Amino acid sequence: MPSTPLVVLNAPLDMHLHLRDGEMLQNVINGSTQTFSGAIIMPNLVPPVSSKEEVIAYKERISLAQGDKKFTSYMTLFFKPSYDKAFLSALRDEITAIKLYPAGITTNSEGGVSGFDVEELRPALDAMSELNIPLCVHGETNGFVMDREAEFVSIYEKLATAFPKLKIIMEHITTKESVAALEKHENLYATITVHHLFITLDDVAGGMLQPHLFCKPIAKRPEDRDALLKVALEAHSKVMFGSDSAPHPQHAKENCGCAAGVFTSPIALQLLTELFEKHDALENLQAFVSGNAQNIYGVQPLAKTVTLEKKPFKVPANYNGVVPMYANEEIAYSIKEVKNG
Amino acid sequence: MPSTPLVVLNAPLDMHLHLRDGEMLQNVINGSTQTFSGAIIMPNLVPPVSSKEEVIAYKERISLAQGDKKFTSYMTLFFKPSYDKAFLSALRDEITAIKLYPAGITTNSEGGVSGFDVEELRPALDAMSELNIPLCVHGETNGFVMDREAEFVSIYEKLATAFPKLKIIMEHITTKESVAALEKHENLYATITVHHLFITLDDVAGGMLQPHLFCKPIAKRPEDRDALLKVALEAHSKVMFGSDSAPHPQHAKENCGCAAGVFTSPIALQLLTELFEKHDALENLQAFVSGNAQNIYGVQPLAKTVTLEKKPFKVPANYNGVVPMYANEEIAYSIKEVKNG
Repeated sequence: MPSTPLVVLNAPLDMHLHLRDGEMLQNVINGSTQTFSGAIIMPNLVPPVSSKEEVIAYKERISLAQGDKKFTSYMTLFFKPSYDKAFLSALRDEITAIKLYPAGITTNSEGGVSGFDVEELRPALDAMSELNIPLCVHGETNGFVMDREAEFVSIYEKLATAFPKLKIIMEHITTKESVAALEKHENLYATITVHHLFITLDDVAGGMLQPHLFCKPIAKRPEDRDALLKVALEAHSKVMFGSDSAPHPQHAKENCGCAAGVFTSPIALQLLTELFEKHDALENLQAFVSGNAQNIYGVQPLAKTVTLEKKPFKVPANYNGVVPMYANEEIAYSIKEVKNG
Repeated sequence: MPSTPLVVLNAPLDMHLHLRDGEMLQNVINGSTQTFSGAIIMPNLVPPVSSKEEVIAYKERISLAQGDKKFTSYMTLFFKPSYDKAFLSALRDEITAIKLYPAGITTNSEGGVSGFDVEELRPALDAMSELNIPLCVHGETNGFVMDREAEFVSIYEKLATAFPKLKIIMEHITTKESVAALEKHENLYATITVHHLFITLDDVAGGMLQPHLFCKPIAKRPEDRDALLKVALEAHSKVMFGSDSAPHPQHAKENCGCAAGVFTSPIALQLLTELFEKHDALENLQAFVSGNAQNIYGVQPLAKTVTLEKKPFKVPANYNGVVPMYANEEIAYSIKEVKNG
């Protein structure tokens, strides 16, 4: 009788994570600390994390919530055009990246950037280039929902050209246009979520409407998913896994007017293993979930070894009240063991 | 002081309506009988209305529910390829049209047509041509949600060519491709809903996810809505108003996995008046909501005069538990008076 196939991942990293704050932080943190060595923590709290003191205080709250779990929070600052070199130098050691939101484009992004005038952004982005701080961007315009990301590609290209030494991370990309942009500019990189590798708009709105698969950017067309799959499965050196796991209370999802965000962190590695095995690409999974991120960000994650086995796992109806992707459904892989250190 | 502008509509017809059955029929029927002279009643009950006895019995249940309200139910049969001339001749007087659903494409359509083989459909469609029974079609493939209707246009064209004497109504069209098909085949006609004249996918999923604007076919792109608006506002002689008002219980809409359908019948005429006035096309509204349908179907509706005034109307949170489009929002026109006879 053949033994169950095992997959071992070293130091998985989630390069785009929403841990929220307060009670929600308590509810969701184990979903990340259990299997990930660390994560880039997004700053879109209310108010957004936009000062050295706020970064330090948020990191401390996360640290308290995680208890004795081994996990590194790579902190980010909420981008403002007013940041200058003196301000950023003083907090350089506290952050790993800065996150730019176009104003009003997603959850708690009201204080983001309106218009993308290069000269207006130059002082802040020149300072980031000099200090080697990557710029993470939620790349959507306020256009038609299926076109927002593709329309934003010209802004990515403008920034990449104007600031050639700035590392720009196109966050949670969902379109073939963003994938194409990766090849055109040396300083463009991308994160890809697990849900955008699995679903298209068909899964959100093709049968019944599925609030728990509704997110921003919205899942796109089959040919877009194919483009994402290609660079993820080959572990293209400029792409990294970033879950964009974004919890909301159940009532804010299953309601008249549902909030955007898919909660995936507790099942992300299981789903990625299933996907990479299905496409005969397991040898590239390590690079996608950790190696590429280490190279792009220059981070050295905590040692953590996650062993997955091919054994069905029934996804819980909720994790502390937060409904995950594929709730109550069976997925192919389970976490068998996690070793720290 | 200028007097409030009034708009008078004679014998409005809703050429695509779901009245459901049982308790739901009781809950929603007044929304139609109050302002419409009559409506084409869709047959997708469980089980579907597919025999003379079922048509007569359903019409009787509707008649009981409407009480003394003046309103004509133009009954339809659920299309099956097995229908032949003898069968259809025997029930010709009971129905106004036959509705074809591709299998599994929308609410209660499981028993619909799989594949569109002209020769398989020929006996039934030849009989309908001879008996002058229009064929109403829910035109969607099972492809990607944004492409389903455009993909179905080739099937419309195949049927229109193979059965040139058959009147084919493209129901609740949502795309520029369907609008274009109207011009290519003499025997293609269309209904257009009020919600598809107001919304695009942006309204369903561009901000928060809006279950009460989720329907099949799903609302499409801005250029699609523009194409619909053009033929509706000019009251193109081959298009008619059909609400596709499709009630579901509130729990089936605001839930994890929301049912498809927008409930509009009680506010449809108010919204259409607002729209036609905004586009300076009020002179065409009568043809869109009644005249064209009379010509296409050869029906002579009951006399009913509906007077609307430009006075804000706050749409109720629900009508007997069914949440309408624009619940709790203010719309520009109110029903001032309805005269029967």
